[in-house]
Amino acid sequence: MSTTAQPPARTQMASEIAEQPAAARRTLDHLRPERERLRALFQGRRRVLLVARGSSDNAAIYARYLLEVSAGVPAALAAPSVATHYRARLDLDDTLVVSVSQSGSTAEIVETQEWARACGAATVSVSNVADSPLAAAADLALTTQAGPEVAVPATKTYLTQMVALGVLADALGPADSGIAADLGRVPDAVDGLLGQDVEPAAEALAGVERVIVSGRGFLLGTALETALKMEETCLRPVRGYSYADLRHGPISVVGDGVLAVLVAAAHGPLAEPMAELADDLRARGARVLGLGGTPAFGERCDVHLAGPDLPETVEPVASIVPAQMMIERLALRLGLDPDNPRGLNKVTQTDVGR
Amino acid sequence: MSTTAQPPARTQMASEIAEQPAAARRTLDHLRPERERLRALFQGRRRVLLVARGSSDNAAIYARYLLEVSAGVPAALAAPSVATHYRARLDLDDTLVVSVSQSGSTAEIVETQEWARACGAATVSVSNVADSPLAAAADLALTTQAGPEVAVPATKTYLTQMVALGVLADALGPADSGIAADLGRVPDAVDGLLGQDVEPAAEALAGVERVIVSGRGFLLGTALETALKMEETCLRPVRGYSYADLRHGPISVVGDGVLAVLVAAAHGPLAEPMAELADDLRARGARVLGLGGTPAFGERCDVHLAGPDLPETVEPVASIVPAQMMIERLALRLGLDPDNPRGLNKVTQTDVGR
Repeated sequence: MSTTAQPPARTQMASEIAEQPAAARRTLDHLRPERERLRALFQGRRRVLLVARGSSDNAAIYARYLLEVSAGVPAALAAPSVATHYRARLDLDDTLVVSVSQSGSTAEIVETQEWARACGAATVSVSNVADSPLAAAADLALTTQAGPEVAVPATKTYLTQMVALGVLADALGPADSGIAADLGRVPDAVDGLLGQDVEPAAEALAGVERVIVSGRGFLLGTALETALKMEETCLRPVRGYSYADLRHGPISVVGDGVLAVLVAAAHGPLAEPMAELADDLRARGARVLGLGGTPAFGERCDVHLAGPDLPETVEPVASIVPAQMMIERLALRLGLDPDNPRGLNKVTQTDVGR
Repeated sequence: MSTTAQPPARTQMASEIAEQPAAARRTLDHLRPERERLRALFQGRRRVLLVARGSSDNAAIYARYLLEVSAGVPAALAAPSVATHYRARLDLDDTLVVSVSQSGSTAEIVETQEWARACGAATVSVSNVADSPLAAAADLALTTQAGPEVAVPATKTYLTQMVALGVLADALGPADSGIAADLGRVPDAVDGLLGQDVEPAAEALAGVERVIVSGRGFLLGTALETALKMEETCLRPVRGYSYADLRHGPISVVGDGVLAVLVAAAHGPLAEPMAELADDLRARGARVLGLGGTPAFGERCDVHLAGPDLPETVEPVASIVPAQMMIERLALRLGLDPDNPRGLNKVTQTDVGR
C-alpha cells in the first residue's frame, strides 16, 4: 500500500550551506590575529588591486565597496590578461595586490600574483588551501577555514572569502571603522537564515525561462553571485546587472515572462531605490522575487525571501545564504544534480593547456 | 507583374553607422592637438580611474587595456555608487579621473566627476556635447566630433569615444607606444568594413532564443558592447562574458540551441585561444557566429563576419562596426525599430528623480 519512493538524500551542497555559521566563526577566529601583519604590509602603500575569477570575483567586488566606503582605501579589480597574456609592465609599488581563489591553484591567478610582485606590489592571498601555490607565493597568506568543500558550486568557501576580505578591510582602514564588530555578528545572522522555507522561490524560478538578477553597491556582488550560481547549477543563462546598468539600457528587455530577482539592502542609501526598481519592473510585466531589503521592498515583491538584519557593510556576507538555498532546491526541481553540474571541475582553469 | 512592396527606408541607425569613418577622422583631427595639455594634467599622477555607464562603460573597458598594456599606466573602472550614494572619502591626488558620457548630462557621471575633484583628482571628460555639464566642469574636456546622433543606440558616439580615449592613452604613455600611428589607420579600416553583407549573421541570430557573446582582453569591450546593443535594440537578454569567465563556470549553460557570438582578435596573444574556444563551444552543441579573428578562427565558425586588419591595440575601435550593422538588420528582421527601442531615452539616467 505504501509507495516505495525514497525521500531524496540531502545533497552535499545543502550540507555545506548549513556548515557556514561554523565556517565563518572558525575563519574569523583564525584570521583576526593577522590584523597587525596586514597593517604592516600595507604601510607606505595607497591602494588595493583584487585578482579573482568566478565566485571569488564576486567576493572581490564586495571587498571593493568595503575597502573604498568603509576603510577609505581606493580599490579596483585587476584584468588578469593584462598580466598573463599581454605581460604589461606597470609600476605597482604603491599597491597591495589581493588574490582570491578557493583552491589557490587556478594557474591564471597564481601567475597574475607573480606578475604583481615583479611589478613591485606587496601580495596577500585568500584561499581555502593552506599549502596551495597561491598561498605559498604570497607575502601574507589568509587561509579561510571552510574545511573541505566537495560540491562543485562554491558556498562556504565563498562566504568565508568575504569574511577574510572583511578582516583585511578592517586592518587597512581606520580604527573606528566598525567593520570588526559588525563582522562578529555575521555567524549568528547566517544561522538565523538557515531555517527559512525557500520552496516558493524555487518554484517561481522553475517555471520561467528568462531570469535576470539585479542589485547595487555592497549587494552587487551578491546579485552577481546569485546569477552565476544559477548558471552553473541550473544550466541556464542568467544575466546579473547593477541596477544602475539595468536602468541605463537593458531594462528594455524586461517584459512579460521575465522573472527579476532583486537583491536589496535592508539599510543604507540604496534600500529605498530598490523598492522603486521593484515597482518599475512589475509595471513592465515582470514578476519580482525579492531577497532582503526593507519591509516596503518586501511588500512589493511577488515572492520574497528574508535577508539578514545586519548593517549594509557586512550584509552581503550573509545575504547570499538564502540565494544558495533557493538555487539548491531549484536544481533538484529541474532534475539536475546541484553537487555536480555538467562540465565543471572543482579546480577551475581559464585557459586550455594551463 | 511587379510587386508593390517598398524597399525599407534606411534607418537612422544605418545612416549613423555609415558616418563613422568621417566622424573618426574629425575626432582625431580635433583631439590630437590636446596631447600636450593631457600630458601636463597627468604630470605627478600615477593612475587613471574611468567613470562611465552603458556603451561608454564598454569604451572605458577598452581604454583600460590600452592604458595598462600600451601606455603602461595603471587604470581601473570606478564604482559610481561609491561617490553618489555612499559618498566615500578617498585620497585621489595621484589619480586622473576620466569621465565618459556621450550626452555629458547623465547626472550620476557628472556627480561622480565632482566627487573625484573634491577627492583631489584631476579630471578629463569625454563627451559629444561641448557645452554639456560634464565638459563644463572638467579640467580638460575632450569633445568627440560625432555630430548629432538621433538613433537611440549609440554607434558613432561610441566609436569616437574610443578614438578620444586612444588619444588620451597616446598622450599619457611613452613616445614610442605606437598608438597615434595605429589610430590613424582606423578611419580607412572602418570604411573598408561598411560594404560587408551581414544578412547571414542577422538571419542566424533571428532564429535563436539563447545568445551569448564572448571576447577577451582588448576585444572584451567590443563583446560587451555587442551584447548590450543586442539587448537594447532587439529586446532580449544577452549575456556578454570574458572568455576566461565563461570557461570558469558559465560554460555549463552552453548546449544545443545556444548561439555563441565570439569577437576575436586577428593578432596578439589571444588570437589562437579564441579558435580553441570556438571548437569547444561547437563540441558542446552551440552554433558559433564569429567576428574578426585569424583565418583559422574564421574556418571554425558556422557564420563569420570579417573584422578590420589592424593591430589588436586599436582593432576594437573598428571591430564594433560589423556588429552594429548586424544588429540593425536583426532588429528589422524581428519587426522592431532599431532607432527607437522600447523604454529608452537618449539621455540616460540611472536613478529615479535624478
